[in-house]
Amino acid sequence: MRAVDLIAKKRDGGTHDAAEIRFLVDGFLDGRVAPEQMSAWCMAVVWRGLDDAEIDALCAAMVESGDVVDLASLGRTVVDKHSTGGVGDKVTLALAPLVAACGVPVAKMSGRGLGHTGGTLDKLEAIPGYRIAIPIPEFIELVRDVGCAVVAQTKQLVPADSKIYALRDITGTVSAPGLIATSVMSKKLASGAGAMVLDVKVGDGAFCRTVDEARELARLMHGLGDRAGRRVVCEITRMDAPLGRAVGNALEVAEAFDVLRGTAPADVTEVTRTSAIRLLTLAEPGLADDDAGTRVDEAIASGRALAAARRWVAAQGGDARAVDEPWEVMERAPVQHAVPAPRGGYVEEAGALAIGLAAVRLGAGRSRPGEAVDHAVGIVLAAKPGDAVEAGAPLATVHARDTASAWAAAADVAAAYRVGDTPVTVPDVLLETIA
Amino acid sequence: MRAVDLIAKKRDGGTHDAAEIRFLVDGFLDGRVAPEQMSAWCMAVVWRGLDDAEIDALCAAMVESGDVVDLASLGRTVVDKHSTGGVGDKVTLALAPLVAACGVPVAKMSGRGLGHTGGTLDKLEAIPGYRIAIPIPEFIELVRDVGCAVVAQTKQLVPADSKIYALRDITGTVSAPGLIATSVMSKKLASGAGAMVLDVKVGDGAFCRTVDEARELARLMHGLGDRAGRRVVCEITRMDAPLGRAVGNALEVAEAFDVLRGTAPADVTEVTRTSAIRLLTLAEPGLADDDAGTRVDEAIASGRALAAARRWVAAQGGDARAVDEPWEVMERAPVQHAVPAPRGGYVEEAGALAIGLAAVRLGAGRSRPGEAVDHAVGIVLAAKPGDAVEAGAPLATVHARDTASAWAAAADVAAAYRVGDTPVTVPDVLLETIA
Repeated sequence: MRAVDLIAKKRDGGTHDAAEIRFLVDGFLDGRVAPEQMSAWCMAVVWRGLDDAEIDALCAAMVESGDVVDLASLGRTVVDKHSTGGVGDKVTLALAPLVAACGVPVAKMSGRGLGHTGGTLDKLEAIPGYRIAIPIPEFIELVRDVGCAVVAQTKQLVPADSKIYALRDITGTVSAPGLIATSVMSKKLASGAGAMVLDVKVGDGAFCRTVDEARELARLMHGLGDRAGRRVVCEITRMDAPLGRAVGNALEVAEAFDVLRGTAPADVTEVTRTSAIRLLTLAEPGLADDDAGTRVDEAIASGRALAAARRWVAAQGGDARAVDEPWEVMERAPVQHAVPAPRGGYVEEAGALAIGLAAVRLGAGRSRPGEAVDHAVGIVLAAKPGDAVEAGAPLATVHARDTASAWAAAADVAAAYRVGDTPVTVPDVLLETIA
Repeated sequence: MRAVDLIAKKRDGGTHDAAEIRFLVDGFLDGRVAPEQMSAWCMAVVWRGLDDAEIDALCAAMVESGDVVDLASLGRTVVDKHSTGGVGDKVTLALAPLVAACGVPVAKMSGRGLGHTGGTLDKLEAIPGYRIAIPIPEFIELVRDVGCAVVAQTKQLVPADSKIYALRDITGTVSAPGLIATSVMSKKLASGAGAMVLDVKVGDGAFCRTVDEARELARLMHGLGDRAGRRVVCEITRMDAPLGRAVGNALEVAEAFDVLRGTAPADVTEVTRTSAIRLLTLAEPGLADDDAGTRVDEAIASGRALAAARRWVAAQGGDARAVDEPWEVMERAPVQHAVPAPRGGYVEEAGALAIGLAAVRLGAGRSRPGEAVDHAVGIVLAAKPGDAVEAGAPLATVHARDTASAWAAAADVAAAYRVGDTPVTVPDVLLETIA
């Protein structure tokens, strides 16, 4: 088998068998397939696509390129979740302890943030002491003993994905639905959970810009999970504005725990509650949605969700006061600067992409892999789409390291807002559920 | 400017300006554009194509990546020719001295053969002493003093082409008409000739499999030459069977000089004569085709063409006896083995690709760059399409290094032939001329 022949086959619209896909993946890892061959193949895939059997084979070859977490010893259905990434998306931080408090174990491996979307690991590291690098045996123990764990993907988890993704990132070949679906699902399958919710975000701050793109990606990921014997639900959610009000690592941690306190903004609460209900009914197939909803609401009302969060953070070495008194233990940015509304009216838009990029420029995110992140800085929205504002009232507050960056971010944030004359109706954040 | 953005632009069907094209070419040479980025861009080009302005910019950037031969000091129109490659294509070896004998200087830089098509340099090296590596100043002197020169492209001639071609070769991105046209024409433009014939071959032994593909490639190359101020004629010729009867380096040298003696097969004689007429009329715009034809025929009949061949070979250090007594100076293969016709009838097919590959397996060509070539071995066709054959009469003779390879090649050659019951009319080898 020769890489050049496989590239030509895909270029000409052909279909690979599993052995050919495996040759490409294994060969790229061991050097038989050169980077310039893999990138040409990826571009041919952007052009010609992959069918379901090719996607299954690619995902399987990627999963088998490294370690696979075996959660069978827990003797129960363990759940997981994934989001395709958005601005202000702190749902994992609330969802994991909430679902654990409802009696269903959660095992989640996360990645770093890149570009305008934040990463769960960066957020968690805003909590002093929180350990993300946890060996797989300890990860499994945490899930068993604490009910949930959120850790970094180990380097041995789907090494093919890291290597292929780094190549795609510099060769304009990220945008192939089949490659995106296998990149996400290989990591989900290798992480071992039996059931999962996949949140496919759509909007200017998301990877998918249209609902059709999101549906196609959801269909591909759902199919990969189904055929691998996992129970999967996909949710398509809006990402045209930041989720919740907080954007930035420590700020998002605080808001995530507000969800467990019942005091968080409606949209982030809705996404978290809906995903929790999905995970409960996936884990317990007889459970009705309403009963799951009651269980979720009771976990919040009773304080059990907050207690689960404290146990989880402490078990991973973090200062559990972050759950109740976040600003006693996490750093606040020294400069806080309000962004005033230039006019009165109704907020029509608070652009997720622009606000996400403003947060990156403040230091909350990274433009290239490996850059350090400032956990304290970020943006807190005072007004969200649909809100009425008066001229001069704050649209948002910028949390910055210094005055110069605060002013620059304030200008970026102001430009991300559009305020109009007529009341605005904001659609639900959850657009579709694909069970 | 970033390579990944340019790749994405082409992937999405965009059009590059000249600065972007130059960044890609120069960047690939100096390392700002990684091989895996260049190959992804090439695949995007296979997919989306290049428009005329992009092709012009690409060709210009490639030409300017290295040395350019300036033939202005000769004070005359110097001509050149190119073939897109075929089996048994020894036309350059006859055409160069023939046109020189007609008073028009010929300056040709050639490449090596790869795969089933032979290379002019490999053929010339069958002549003992013939030097192909000649510095540009001496190349220009040879053209002035001898009337023709056929040398190897120097490494400094269009270095971007060598590097891009090597990449395309292993990444399935050879088959983009725009990339093929710029690869050919950058070398032709850098070689300095003011007028040229481009022989675009079509058939199973050629790069272009259909006349439409050949027309498109001819159109692109013609346009590049026109816009660069060169006079260009394209000829589309058949390559469904080997050209002439000889396939293999020394065998082809001998047949090429037979063209100058008037004793070569009709098809190779026709292509050589037609191309010679084109080159004369390009060099002398007032010259009528008929007058050019008379001049060509007289050069052959008078022996002046043979004399020009002797002068040329000797001037480049070769043993000029190769022109008149080829087997006194070139090696003959030790084993000659006839391939008998399995039945009587009419030859319908003598597949160029299959016969070319049989010659490669005998050692006459190379499967990968840098391999050594056996100059003596090859195949001589006794029967060509249209010929009547009797059962058991030879279809061809295999010239081999040993008996085992002779038998293997004989089987390959036999399989390349198809003999039928009804007389076959063979169309002219020259299909179209695009002036």
